[in-house]
This record gives sequence, C-alpha cells and structure tokens, in this order.
Amino acid sequence: MPRYKLTIEYDGTPFVGWQAQDNGVSVQSTLVAAVAAFSGETVVMQGAGRTDAGVHALGQVAHVELTKDWNVDNVRDALNFHLRPHPIAVLAAERVGEDFDARFSATKRHYLYRIINRRADLALEANRAWRIGRPLDAGAMHAAAQKLVGRHDFTTFRAAECQAKSPVKTLDRLEVTRDGEELHVTATARSFLHHPVRSMVGSLVHVGEGKWSAEYLVAALAARDRARCGQVAPPQGLYLVRVEYS
Amino acid sequence: MPRYKLTIEYDGTPFVGWQAQDNGVSVQSTLVAAVAAFSGETVVMQGAGRTDAGVHALGQVAHVELTKDWNVDNVRDALNFHLRPHPIAVLAAERVGEDFDARFSATKRHYLYRIINRRADLALEANRAWRIGRPLDAGAMHAAAQKLVGRHDFTTFRAAECQAKSPVKTLDRLEVTRDGEELHVTATARSFLHHPVRSMVGSLVHVGEGKWSAEYLVAALAARDRARCGQVAPPQGLYLVRVEYS
Repeated sequence: MPRYKLTIEYDGTPFVGWQAQDNGVSVQSTLVAAVAAFSGETVVMQGAGRTDAGVHALGQVAHVELTKDWNVDNVRDALNFHLRPHPIAVLAAERVGEDFDARFSATKRHYLYRIINRRADLALEANRAWRIGRPLDAGAMHAAAQKLVGRHDFTTFRAAECQAKSPVKTLDRLEVTRDGEELHVTATARSFLHHPVRSMVGSLVHVGEGKWSAEYLVAALAARDRARCGQVAPPQGLYLVRVEYS
Repeated sequence: MPRYKLTIEYDGTPFVGWQAQDNGVSVQSTLVAAVAAFSGETVVMQGAGRTDAGVHALGQVAHVELTKDWNVDNVRDALNFHLRPHPIAVLAAERVGEDFDARFSATKRHYLYRIINRRADLALEANRAWRIGRPLDAGAMHAAAQKLVGRHDFTTFRAAECQAKSPVKTLDRLEVTRDGEELHVTATARSFLHHPVRSMVGSLVHVGEGKWSAEYLVAALAARDRARCGQVAPPQGLYLVRVEYS
C-alpha cells in the first residue's frame, strides 16, 4: 500500500500528548480521525517522538498507509481541512517507500527548550515557554551542558515510566544560547529516553541560578540515580523541532 | 500625585481592544481593575495607542496616577499578580513627571505586522499572524511600500470610524522583509490614523500576489478615496511593538 510521510506542527496545550490515551484527546487520535474523515480509512499512525502533554512540535514526523495513490498536496490540504479547529497542521505530505518508518528510520531528533528569563508573567508566550524570574547565567549553563554531551548512562535524567531498554544513549549536542531575555536549549540525539530534555533543562537551570556547579551536575549524572535529577522543566517550553532520516 | 509609566505586553485575542467598551472586556478595563485590586484606587488610564480587538502589544505604554509613592518594582509585580489569568503582563513600571502623557508625549510608534506565507494552517501561530497561501513577492511589496513613506493624505487607508482631525500624516518607515516563510511589515510614525497599518498591509499583499502594481498603489493613495483601499488585513497579525518618548 502507498506509504505517506507527514510533517506535522502542533500546539501541545490542549492535548494529552502525541500518543493516544484514555484520559483525553491526543494529537495522534486527532490526526487518525482526520485521515478517516478524508479517506474513509482507519489507519495506524506511527510518530517519530512521543511528546508529552503540553509539549509542542514544529516538525513531528509520522507515517501512514492508505489504499489509494493520492496526490500528496491533496493529502496535506484535505488533512488540514479536517483538522480544523484543532491546533494541528500538516506542513507536508510525501510518498515514501515501504521501508520508511517514522520512528525506527529516524537518525536524529532535534529538540528546542525555550526559557524566558524575566520577572513579568508571559502574555503572548503563555504556554509557549518557561518563565524564570531569577537571573540565569546562560554561559555557565552552556559550559555545564557540554559535560552531558556524548555517550552516557542517563538514568539520572530518565522518567520513572521510561520504557527504553537501556539508559545508555549518545547525546550529540546540548547548547544553551541567550538572545535578550530568551534562552534556547537545543538538544540533538538519535534517540532520547522519556523526557530527558526536560530533566536536563531542569538541572541546567539550577546551574544557571548558581545553585549547582558544573561538577555537581557531573556527579549527578555519574550517580545514575533518578533522585539526583534537580527538577523536571515544565512541558510548555519544549518543542520537537525536526526529525532527520538518512 | 505620583505618576507611573507602565510598559505592557498583551495577547489581544480575548479582548475587545485596548479601549474600554460596552461590548466586552478590554485591556484597559482589565488593567484598571488590577490597579484597583492592588491600590484600592480607581484610576484613569491613558494608553499610547488604541489597539483594535485581536491586535497584540509587545510594548504598549500607559500612564496612571496613584496617591502613594510606591516602589516601582512592587507596582509591576502587584499588577501582574492581580492581572492573572488574563494574558496581560506589565513589563516595567517607572516614575515619570506630571508632564508625561503616554498618548501625547509619544514621538514614535512602532508596529509590526506578521504574515506567514504557506499553504498549511497555523497551529502554533494561530491568532498570532495572518496566513496567506499564495506565494508573496516580498521584494515587490517592499518596493511598493516605499511609495507610501513620507507625508501624505492617507484617506485611502483610513477606517470609516477614524476620529483623527486630519488625514495627513508622516509615515517614517514601512519595510517588508522575509525570513523563510515569514514576512514582517514594520511601520513607524509619530502617530497613525485608525488602523492604517492593517489597511496598508492589505493593499501591499495585493502587490505581493501580483494583483496590483506599485503604480496602482500610488494611484490608490493619490485618489484619497477609502473605496480604493484593497482590503484590511486581519487584526491577529498586528503588534504594537514599542512607543518612543523624547
């Protein structure tokens, strides 16, 4: 059957997360309903990353199989029509081979975490970033972040409900930059454990506030102990930006 | 009485506009209620620009008089506390002299209009920009925009309900830039007529789509005829960015 790759943007605020769950509306189930409305088919939809409730995507990737050989622009436009008024948009639909798997073929996943470092509440960026009132030292956060880059046992930064077989992962990139009052933490890896970006950001913020030294962070990683994770950053600052395929 | 200058950010989506009106909740009335909750005083609040329903602000300015000589950071924090959960944030509170008037002392007002030029609906930027599906020529829009810069009779781009005494205004700057799929129209003037930015953007989009030539736009301006205005861009793309004072 013809297989389609979908690139998807969404505002995670109203959803229980990417994955279909019993306790509310998921991004995945909303997309599956839109596919059914357009094609009459009930599909299985596989996503590249299981974003948590409140986490956003600028470029989530999923694949579906449909019996018909549709024009891809029509697939995109029809899905967007049926997705309204949900804050989910299909940016692109492409035909791919049967060996393409949105989850297992991915070679890199890029995440962004947005922090707005100011006293005032967020008005325009409410539900789009984590506001932190105390001044953050982005340089110290970036320096400490480099200690987490590479192949490590990330047990400290792993969620209790994480289902990955091994806690050993390779983090390719973890950068902290500041532009005015906004800090960006960008993270890249082939695959991630369950909310490790939010866990790492939470601990890096302790470094940025001067509560933790880089050495303390290194010791927390080395301890391979979930109890040593500083805090988990809230979901609304996190974006799945892009997924790469070879 | 001590006078305070407030710099204010808001998401215009849920409001009837800046100005207090009978038909819903305004930004101004919400701020006046927050001042009353914090100080017990019912103030008159003058804003620099009367933004329409759905129009946002990154840096609206208002002034109020309070009987007490408060610490300005406490004014900011207390107002933000009482503004919750409304998407309005006081970014800064400052003491100013009695001759400072948020509206009449302003020497420049800077507006931004955001267009996202793509086929797919907006998910993360819904209510934050105007999506236009057909390709826009930003270079042609910028070139045409330069014909509007300077001192002109802006009757063509003036709303029917505009209360300004004269339609003659000086537009200091009107620039169109593109970064990927996003176009920014930035406009600066000492003062504007009633929604001229949205009117000018609407006509510039006709130029960007190839429907209007720059010459046609010039003729529309010269006609000083509201009927020659192409279309009024929707409010959700417009931001009052900053107000300057001498």
